[in-house]
Amino acid sequence: MNLQMALYLIPVDISGASWRSVMPPENLEIIKGIRYFIVENIRTARRTIKRLDPSADISAITFYELNRHTDDKEISTFLQPLREGNVMGVMSEAGCPGVADPGASVVRIAQSEGLRVIPLVGPSSILLSLMGSGLNGQNFSFNGYLPVENTDRERKIRELEALSVKNDVTQIFIETPYRNEKMFESLLKTLRNETLMCVASSVTDPEKEMIQTRSVGEWKKLNFKIAKEPTVFLFYSPNQNKRSNQSYGKKKNFI
Amino acid sequence: MNLQMALYLIPVDISGASWRSVMPPENLEIIKGIRYFIVENIRTARRTIKRLDPSADISAITFYELNRHTDDKEISTFLQPLREGNVMGVMSEAGCPGVADPGASVVRIAQSEGLRVIPLVGPSSILLSLMGSGLNGQNFSFNGYLPVENTDRERKIRELEALSVKNDVTQIFIETPYRNEKMFESLLKTLRNETLMCVASSVTDPEKEMIQTRSVGEWKKLNFKIAKEPTVFLFYSPNQNKRSNQSYGKKKNFI
Repeated sequence: MNLQMALYLIPVDISGASWRSVMPPENLEIIKGIRYFIVENIRTARRTIKRLDPSADISAITFYELNRHTDDKEISTFLQPLREGNVMGVMSEAGCPGVADPGASVVRIAQSEGLRVIPLVGPSSILLSLMGSGLNGQNFSFNGYLPVENTDRERKIRELEALSVKNDVTQIFIETPYRNEKMFESLLKTLRNETLMCVASSVTDPEKEMIQTRSVGEWKKLNFKIAKEPTVFLFYSPNQNKRSNQSYGKKKNFI
Repeated sequence: MNLQMALYLIPVDISGASWRSVMPPENLEIIKGIRYFIVENIRTARRTIKRLDPSADISAITFYELNRHTDDKEISTFLQPLREGNVMGVMSEAGCPGVADPGASVVRIAQSEGLRVIPLVGPSSILLSLMGSGLNGQNFSFNGYLPVENTDRERKIRELEALSVKNDVTQIFIETPYRNEKMFESLLKTLRNETLMCVASSVTDPEKEMIQTRSVGEWKKLNFKIAKEPTVFLFYSPNQNKRSNQSYGKKKNFI
């Protein structure tokens, strides 16, 4: 396959799964052809490349580190090799660059200069959780992290639930694993019993993946102990008074 | 690899791209191992399976058709083989089952019975467009289709733009290809000049993919003629008065 003169956005696996279960084979060929990478963390990027391509000559690769410590002005300079005609790649530590992730800033600069950007297929815990939840996939919102403080978090949960009813939308958010228990408690305490809630932990992990949807009322009865694993939370509160548009798209073509 | 006793959610390619560029190799092995499929359209599902596995014995496969004509009560009966201990698969015509797609209803029934659901990695034009847009991937909303009628559509666009400013959220929606021109016109007419707008057409197609982000002001100057191709529209209207949280996630772990 021929590499395009572009900024490739390369997803990285999000669990201990083999690349064969989460990555198209061409992604590996693309990685092999790239000498300039913008990455979230150089050390882990080196390890990822070495794992996917054991014959890689890491010393021949130039890395630029893009994370929340990177200065806005510096980011634009990272694209110099692409401007000079070299294929480049963006790789985050895990998941899809630009989605809940620092990659978006450099993509936006590339776009503003008319440089070509090519996103590659790979694992996104957000998308996979939504698929697996069975909740409304015609309308959904990803809300990042909710507030840490209890009162603020519960106010936010109530707000998102009201919007779910009003707009027939699935609400999605994430939490850092060590706060999962607190989040789970807040959700059971705050949401209505009939709201459907999905807990999706260790998505794509062949051993630990757990994706379960129950009504809040049922979750309360289960005495479920949530693991300290990477988790996506989703809920959907159908409006009992109107027919949900769930699963009845108008002329769907290709999504 | 060993198949799990589960309902596999199997994405299908969304363009003329080779499976090698959009599908993990294990997906093919999983497809080969499944004898019961719930699909959006039996004829195209047969063709997809035959394309991915030319040696497949289609006559040995049982198909259940799930689309907007399917009766709610009938859907539950489709899961009988899984209840009796057979691996099953859900496949839509293109893209990811359950995301802007009829698959969600049967997943929800499986979840309500405690049956295991395993979503597989594959192409989603929504996710890929968001990655390629460079727009805010920390907060985003997928809104399905907007109203068809001009006045309603423009009111909806204005409403989504106001929410983008208020909540720092990227707005995403789709349109049927033959209405792309009308939608594009409405967007240029309605959005503020400084709003960033991305047009993502024929995503993953090796020849026709086009993903471009410009400010609305710039789009107006370009005299751009939008193609009648499957397209995802995205816009993001940063609040000039507050620092965008774009690309500055709190402790991100794995998305």
